[in-house]
Amino acid sequence: MENNEKIYIIGHKSPDTDSICSAIAYAHFLCELGENALASRSGDMNPETEFVLNYFNVSPPELLTDAGGKKLILVDHNEAAQSPDNIENAEILEVIDHHKIAFKHAEPIYFRTEPVGCTATIIAWEYADYDIEMPSEIAGILLSAILSDTVVFKSPTTTEDDVKTAEMLAGIANIEDIEKFGIEIKKAKSILSGIDAESIIYSDFKDFDFSGKKVGIGQVEVVDMKEVYERKNELINKLNEIKGGKNYNLILLMATDIMSGGSELLCSGETEYIAKAFGKEVKNNSVYIEGMMSRKKDVVPALEKAFKK
Amino acid sequence: MENNEKIYIIGHKSPDTDSICSAIAYAHFLCELGENALASRSGDMNPETEFVLNYFNVSPPELLTDAGGKKLILVDHNEAAQSPDNIENAEILEVIDHHKIAFKHAEPIYFRTEPVGCTATIIAWEYADYDIEMPSEIAGILLSAILSDTVVFKSPTTTEDDVKTAEMLAGIANIEDIEKFGIEIKKAKSILSGIDAESIIYSDFKDFDFSGKKVGIGQVEVVDMKEVYERKNELINKLNEIKGGKNYNLILLMATDIMSGGSELLCSGETEYIAKAFGKEVKNNSVYIEGMMSRKKDVVPALEKAFKK
Repeated sequence: MENNEKIYIIGHKSPDTDSICSAIAYAHFLCELGENALASRSGDMNPETEFVLNYFNVSPPELLTDAGGKKLILVDHNEAAQSPDNIENAEILEVIDHHKIAFKHAEPIYFRTEPVGCTATIIAWEYADYDIEMPSEIAGILLSAILSDTVVFKSPTTTEDDVKTAEMLAGIANIEDIEKFGIEIKKAKSILSGIDAESIIYSDFKDFDFSGKKVGIGQVEVVDMKEVYERKNELINKLNEIKGGKNYNLILLMATDIMSGGSELLCSGETEYIAKAFGKEVKNNSVYIEGMMSRKKDVVPALEKAFKK
Repeated sequence: MENNEKIYIIGHKSPDTDSICSAIAYAHFLCELGENALASRSGDMNPETEFVLNYFNVSPPELLTDAGGKKLILVDHNEAAQSPDNIENAEILEVIDHHKIAFKHAEPIYFRTEPVGCTATIIAWEYADYDIEMPSEIAGILLSAILSDTVVFKSPTTTEDDVKTAEMLAGIANIEDIEKFGIEIKKAKSILSGIDAESIIYSDFKDFDFSGKKVGIGQVEVVDMKEVYERKNELINKLNEIKGGKNYNLILLMATDIMSGGSELLCSGETEYIAKAFGKEVKNNSVYIEGMMSRKKDVVPALEKAFKK
């Protein structure tokens, strides 16, 4: 990072709270180190993230949908398919992430993934490593990202490091009851009424390539599953439509019940791979899997393996 | 790393001094942290590395050519083609490296690359980060790895961080004249007499996949280029033979002149890509490129780009 050209810090497409808040915090961190860094986002924010930024009075990042010719630092993802368009014509300076690794780069760069529940945890470590003072609102949004990604510490992706870091951040941000605050955040995202089926599916959606097959996985977290069951047919019809229009081999929506800890999978396409991956038959384009909370930990590795066979 | 099963720390095939010394040091570091870690190597050591281990009275790592069923930590490489055989049936726990990135892994793990001249520099940082005391012989072999990989700070891959870290390590290892010691190390590797052509080619050799083409690149560093020119035909004949027998699209040997700072490329196969990459015509299977010191920085990115066109 030799000159003063602008560096865009950006998370994945269909950004979630971690992608937005980690980008904002890491941009602040780099600016403190003298870099010309700007937080950005590659799509609309979901209601949960809007709630968080409002709560801590932080401005939303700039929208960046074409990465061509830009200097970028990727946070919360490392797969090109999840980056903004034209990423192949951008200069990637760094990667900080906590997902599975599928990354190619012709030059050595600073690339850091850690097996933790949230990118925000790693960003908090960077502040500590470089002894940069963290403002209270930055601590607040990083705490929110951890609570969001770990589903208030209920997801199997949660590590001791996430919990410890969240406690440290809560101290700086003056949040007394972490779990209560976590459920408040989750509720902001969990209300489906007034949102059309397509927006629900795409609210937190990622594309994957499993052995050459195109698979799309959306996730929505709800406090009251009734909202999902009432609109099941409508959601499945929309999945069928997207599958046909965008040539997915398989598309699914995880409707995750935060309270009981499990997910209803709504799906369309080659659903036999879901049966293969989770050992439970799909009926009428849906199946409920107990204990399934995390796309990254519970769904992606099992599906990837099923497609390999 | 929950249980006490053995963890093998291993560098790339045709191991160089960085691959061997970083494995030894990182295994020592992990043992200090209570892990059951063992340094290993995936092939014979070169004379330079033997000289270094003798100098500091350190035992060579255990030979491991089949990774199947083992728990591994990769150092100094991240491409599966450079790992020991059967790597697809091993469990990879961590990666610490300073090369270009071409890595896929279905789970998030601790993966750290840094744009520095040597893996040993990053290993030294790990000791500092965790406040682990470094024995003098470990400092000595890490210093040697930095001097080897950066060609005594002459390679364009050298960063300020490598130089600073080397100075710190020299202090612990009681090496007073760093550059003099560096040339002593390099001389141990630079004597070709008594070594057959095949061993010279494979002494530090790596396989690459450039746009689907199989490319092999060996490097030998010499203090006196006369040794290379006298055996040029013999080396080219051997390259032709290996190319035919192992179906390389292109195979090359960089004979790098440490003193003047440049490389004679001896090559066989689709040599038009060399002309394309470096803008200089190949004549009689060879071409001299001034200033070319580093396979990683001067050769691989340019060739990869040339094969893309």
